[in-house]
Amino acid sequence: MALIVQKYGGTSVGDLDRIRNVAGRIAKTYDQGNQVVVILSAMSGVTDTLIKTAEKITEFPDKREMDVLMATGEQTTVALMAITLKSMGYEAQSLLGYQVGILTDSQSCSARILDIGADRLKALLADNSIVIVAGFQGCDAKGDITTLGRGGSDTSAVAVAAAINADACEIYTDVDGVYTADPNICKRAKKLDRICYDEMLEMASLGAKVLQIRSVEFAMKYNVPVHVRSSFNEEEGTMVVNEDANMEKVVVSSVTHNKNEARITLLKVPDEPGIASRILSPISDAGIIVDIIIQNTRSGNMTDLTFTVSKTDYKAAMKISEQTAKEIRAEQVVGDENIAKISVIGVGMRSHSGVAAKMFATLAKENINILLISTSEIRISCIIEEKYTELAVRALHTAFELDKTE
Amino acid sequence: MALIVQKYGGTSVGDLDRIRNVAGRIAKTYDQGNQVVVILSAMSGVTDTLIKTAEKITEFPDKREMDVLMATGEQTTVALMAITLKSMGYEAQSLLGYQVGILTDSQSCSARILDIGADRLKALLADNSIVIVAGFQGCDAKGDITTLGRGGSDTSAVAVAAAINADACEIYTDVDGVYTADPNICKRAKKLDRICYDEMLEMASLGAKVLQIRSVEFAMKYNVPVHVRSSFNEEEGTMVVNEDANMEKVVVSSVTHNKNEARITLLKVPDEPGIASRILSPISDAGIIVDIIIQNTRSGNMTDLTFTVSKTDYKAAMKISEQTAKEIRAEQVVGDENIAKISVIGVGMRSHSGVAAKMFATLAKENINILLISTSEIRISCIIEEKYTELAVRALHTAFELDKTE
Repeated sequence: MALIVQKYGGTSVGDLDRIRNVAGRIAKTYDQGNQVVVILSAMSGVTDTLIKTAEKITEFPDKREMDVLMATGEQTTVALMAITLKSMGYEAQSLLGYQVGILTDSQSCSARILDIGADRLKALLADNSIVIVAGFQGCDAKGDITTLGRGGSDTSAVAVAAAINADACEIYTDVDGVYTADPNICKRAKKLDRICYDEMLEMASLGAKVLQIRSVEFAMKYNVPVHVRSSFNEEEGTMVVNEDANMEKVVVSSVTHNKNEARITLLKVPDEPGIASRILSPISDAGIIVDIIIQNTRSGNMTDLTFTVSKTDYKAAMKISEQTAKEIRAEQVVGDENIAKISVIGVGMRSHSGVAAKMFATLAKENINILLISTSEIRISCIIEEKYTELAVRALHTAFELDKTE
Repeated sequence: MALIVQKYGGTSVGDLDRIRNVAGRIAKTYDQGNQVVVILSAMSGVTDTLIKTAEKITEFPDKREMDVLMATGEQTTVALMAITLKSMGYEAQSLLGYQVGILTDSQSCSARILDIGADRLKALLADNSIVIVAGFQGCDAKGDITTLGRGGSDTSAVAVAAAINADACEIYTDVDGVYTADPNICKRAKKLDRICYDEMLEMASLGAKVLQIRSVEFAMKYNVPVHVRSSFNEEEGTMVVNEDANMEKVVVSSVTHNKNEARITLLKVPDEPGIASRILSPISDAGIIVDIIIQNTRSGNMTDLTFTVSKTDYKAAMKISEQTAKEIRAEQVVGDENIAKISVIGVGMRSHSGVAAKMFATLAKENINILLISTSEIRISCIIEEKYTELAVRALHTAFELDKTE
């Protein structure tokens, strides 16, 4: 007997037929003698519809009330799932965020989990009940509903798994698992059987939409083994686990790309102490997250400063930068939305040299110009022109020997 | 400055335009220097849609989970209303049932309110905030969501008004107020300026859909003045208040009708002690509410027993009765769905005689046969053939001098 947490995303519970299908999976796991806790997202499209409705009222709807509104999505699916399981003869009960005791901070629409009570959840499990938990939502110390941001149900699942010390946390999604590259772009991409938390964290932060980044942080912190798999078949997916010796033998485990960034450069900025902060503080004050930052020294007392932001923040960041440029007497602000970030990731990089050189050489061989470079201990990212994205991914996938071998 | 509770029903918040319209009313009341608490229903049609969705899964969806599901309806409207008011520049905040502290028993789908905490609500009022409360819902001692049954938002409103000692409880609906008879049937019906709790209670229990019966019980118990009025105009509606001396001068204040009953008669039942209980216990065990019960003595040791139930329970009650009839060797069970109950109501009856005689004479004059009679201290009801409903209402309305005088 094992204690298993299963999380199903919006497409997996998109209508009553799919809910029935998922109920069958849950029942099967229960019938095999396991204790089962299920975390559900809202039906696909529902959260977006709710957001659009609120935005018809006002451009910036109150965030506390948005949480109240959006939380109805998951509340609906957990009730329907519990009704389905009960109608099949199983003991099942839904629990909302505040009923589980998912305590968060008060940051509406992007709250962070502080603690999970789970007493009630454990009592239901002890009574042999299947427990259906509303994902994406929690409550703060005042008892207000909060939500955890896009993909928050992944985090709910991993956090609940950590709180009840689950044997496994299965994330059911509409893909088979984690791939060495996006299979839509790279036909030779293969599914990874195992990937370590650090690598998954880099992938999530690079825009791979398999898992919410915070769910991976949680899994790593509490050592929760996460199994990413498809809700539409019975195949084994990808295990996200602690690093082991075998993983280091592979230098690069995956190639990722992200077209959702834009580049902003301030040209001929006076090269004086504190200038980077002077430029970037107003950006971060506006709640915009900056990814890569590069400062090049020019001749004279001048420098160029370049940074990237997500495409959705591009216009706002340009406006702020133009204002700052005036104030600090920079010559010009130039922006570029047609860029992509290509990254190679692997814990093996820690013990292998020459990965960067090989990456640059591979791109050069394809005549792809590198605009910016950024690195971490287990990742190298290059910003290139967007139109070369697919070519770059395929070339790097082959160069780092990730292609399918059959 | 007054403390005012306003309740708006489903049609009043049926879409974003209507929500904006209601927000305008709320804002106006607030701007006049009042403290305002608003109770909202789900958008019209939403609760029914949720019920139908659940019934697609199974004929008898689990009731605890139905409460979780249905509560999303009011959760949605309170969030949208708070977003609207905040976008208009008002301090407003939504509170769900459990956040208000509306403590109920655990009877899913038809819970009764045991207590209202309201500390948080009072604190928000003290902060000059408009408070938007989700109607229809509460929570039990375990923290589970409960709902109060059809029309439960009325009860939420009156109960909240009682808990915070409000100066007025305004129930906004799609009618102008309480009428002396249904204006759709009786053109001469007039709106009542005032009606007492007892009369309103009789009207509610007779199927007049203006207020949920339990909301009237609450108002009476805690002496909450209720103002029933339209959300589509500025007219004064009907005040539901304590009885006063003037009210007793009017013998009959209204004529009501209810076509939602059916009659079942067991013929030639052995006339022995306990036989009525033997027949009616299985009916009430099935959760069916019996309205009128009449037992006629026949010649010999035989009796006939007749009772009425609501049309929705008719088939189930017939089936149970046929089974009982076999067991007690009654001769036959006959049923009739084509009946209507016509009632005259008035606290003046307590001090005036001859009301029953006048009612029977009026019906006789129109050649309407009376099938059953039932009375209370302030009400006389006759069951007649359904086809005479409109004729009976109009004749009684005129006979008891309720017709418009202009």
